[in-house]
Amino acid sequence: MSAMAKSVVERVRAGDIRAAARLMRNLDDGVPGARKVLRELFARPGHALVVGLTGPPGAGKSSLTDRLIAHHRKAGRTVGVVAVDPTSPFTGGAILGDRVRMQDHALDPEVFIRSLATRGHLGGLSRATSDVVTVLDSMGKDIVIVETVGVGQDEVEVAELAHTVVVVSIPGMGDEVQAIKAGVLEIADVFAVNKADREGSDRTVKDLQMMLDLRRTTATRPVHDHDALHRMTRTGGDDPHEAGWWEPPIVKTIATRNEGIEELAQAVERHRIHLDSTGERKKREVARARAAFLTLLRDRLMQGALSRLAEEEGHLDELAERIAARNADPYELADALARRL
Amino acid sequence: MSAMAKSVVERVRAGDIRAAARLMRNLDDGVPGARKVLRELFARPGHALVVGLTGPPGAGKSSLTDRLIAHHRKAGRTVGVVAVDPTSPFTGGAILGDRVRMQDHALDPEVFIRSLATRGHLGGLSRATSDVVTVLDSMGKDIVIVETVGVGQDEVEVAELAHTVVVVSIPGMGDEVQAIKAGVLEIADVFAVNKADREGSDRTVKDLQMMLDLRRTTATRPVHDHDALHRMTRTGGDDPHEAGWWEPPIVKTIATRNEGIEELAQAVERHRIHLDSTGERKKREVARARAAFLTLLRDRLMQGALSRLAEEEGHLDELAERIAARNADPYELADALARRL
Repeated sequence: MSAMAKSVVERVRAGDIRAAARLMRNLDDGVPGARKVLRELFARPGHALVVGLTGPPGAGKSSLTDRLIAHHRKAGRTVGVVAVDPTSPFTGGAILGDRVRMQDHALDPEVFIRSLATRGHLGGLSRATSDVVTVLDSMGKDIVIVETVGVGQDEVEVAELAHTVVVVSIPGMGDEVQAIKAGVLEIADVFAVNKADREGSDRTVKDLQMMLDLRRTTATRPVHDHDALHRMTRTGGDDPHEAGWWEPPIVKTIATRNEGIEELAQAVERHRIHLDSTGERKKREVARARAAFLTLLRDRLMQGALSRLAEEEGHLDELAERIAARNADPYELADALARRL
Repeated sequence: MSAMAKSVVERVRAGDIRAAARLMRNLDDGVPGARKVLRELFARPGHALVVGLTGPPGAGKSSLTDRLIAHHRKAGRTVGVVAVDPTSPFTGGAILGDRVRMQDHALDPEVFIRSLATRGHLGGLSRATSDVVTVLDSMGKDIVIVETVGVGQDEVEVAELAHTVVVVSIPGMGDEVQAIKAGVLEIADVFAVNKADREGSDRTVKDLQMMLDLRRTTATRPVHDHDALHRMTRTGGDDPHEAGWWEPPIVKTIATRNEGIEELAQAVERHRIHLDSTGERKKREVARARAAFLTLLRDRLMQGALSRLAEEEGHLDELAERIAARNADPYELADALARRL
């Protein structure tokens, strides 16, 4: 714990924007001292409510995030945002698109926005996101919004990071999309139906409500447990007749016209009260700790194994060629390496 | 190499449906003998062309797959399908929806369809998919179609499994969706614009063409390399002026009316010829071997580490509680475990 590192910790905790930005860059670049700082920050957390915002491309998540920032700022709350964006193959960076609008908040020192690319992480995106959330929380932010695009594993990982998950959908995406939504019921705490001035918004709300009704009548939901590594520990209220049951509200929004934003923020706030009053918040934090630890461990193990592999078997690219030519057995290699380690 | 295991290998290689189905179940359930069989199958591959089919929910991928199966069967080719579906929280199984239509092929012994759930794999979905592809290839299938929903990491993983990646889009999904597509340019070998009878299909084709033109004029594309673990090795033809350059064709389809299916299949066939004539097919197989090996290794290391962890630190759930309460340091724990292993 060098004096240097300590001073970074103190500056981040004091909300110093430049210190936080540099720390995030250093974490990305794998600067060793950065992880030491992160460890110290992690050891004494802030008080941020972490809100996940997820949904399909085109749902207007960035506009909603923008409006939510404005809402919270008006109420005097400080805000951090982690935006997990698809990467352009041209620039190697995030496609900014309507993210640009968030620059409204660029001059506000109480709003910190960090974009992360979705590529080039191989299972490390959730760790990178988790690290940024830790830094924003340490800065003393009241609300941290994690915005992701995704319909698969990404959503689950957001769920594991967040206290409250808002799933954003839009009217008129067809029956097949409705079917997809059943998969996100599991993680949604609040539904936002954005672009609610479009045709079919009532239908979308009705469809969501039907799915929620179905869930309530078929509870306790039997979550299938294929893999002990990845057990969702969102257990709060599996029984709709008990006090712990949370019925996800459905809020119509029109982000471009700033409509429904207050209702959405209120729904999130009601969920926060629910989390605190039922002990569910602690459960979610344990689930998050579990997921974060497993990701860390996986990264560390792979680092060690790959450098050992390079010593023993040569460059990974050559090894891949031998495997592709069936001159090496990947199963045997993986087993042998795991056994030796 | 027991007589028993050998006979399963032989039966799968002879295209025995029951033996293949049982092997896939055993692989899912982690039956140790099953991996041994897989190793033998892997050592002597078949000749399948692996075609990835990916795109957003609602694009009609299942209908397209259905039509492609019928097309190939008519041409006398045998077909395997791996459908990676979102999971219903109610059943723990795949939402079948329009998958049911594929039962048209249920009585055809030369078509083998396997659904995989997207949940409960934690980075293991690509391994599970890869295993099924190995089995289908060993069965002697001519074509293996891997169908996935996804806009993020999933698409990259499909790309790593497939010789040819078909990206499916539909008209009228808005500008924000167009922006997303830039991220999949990197992996698309063929574009299908499905539901092409809908308004705006010409616009969608034009937008895709513009992005392809932009890519050609800005080539060589500088892929940003954040993580050496996850380097895309799709290098074939970075220079549009060289013979190795592949310009992805854009094919309009209306799967529900069986229109454009032949054109789509022809585009895939032209890409196969391109792969063979440029040596790109071998490169893709090396990339696939690399990805498959890394996933295997990661799984093995985590298995070993978690059982060691259970011995030394107690149950993972209790450890997660200590981490959440800041009574344990996840960074130190992960480092220490990785160091000892």
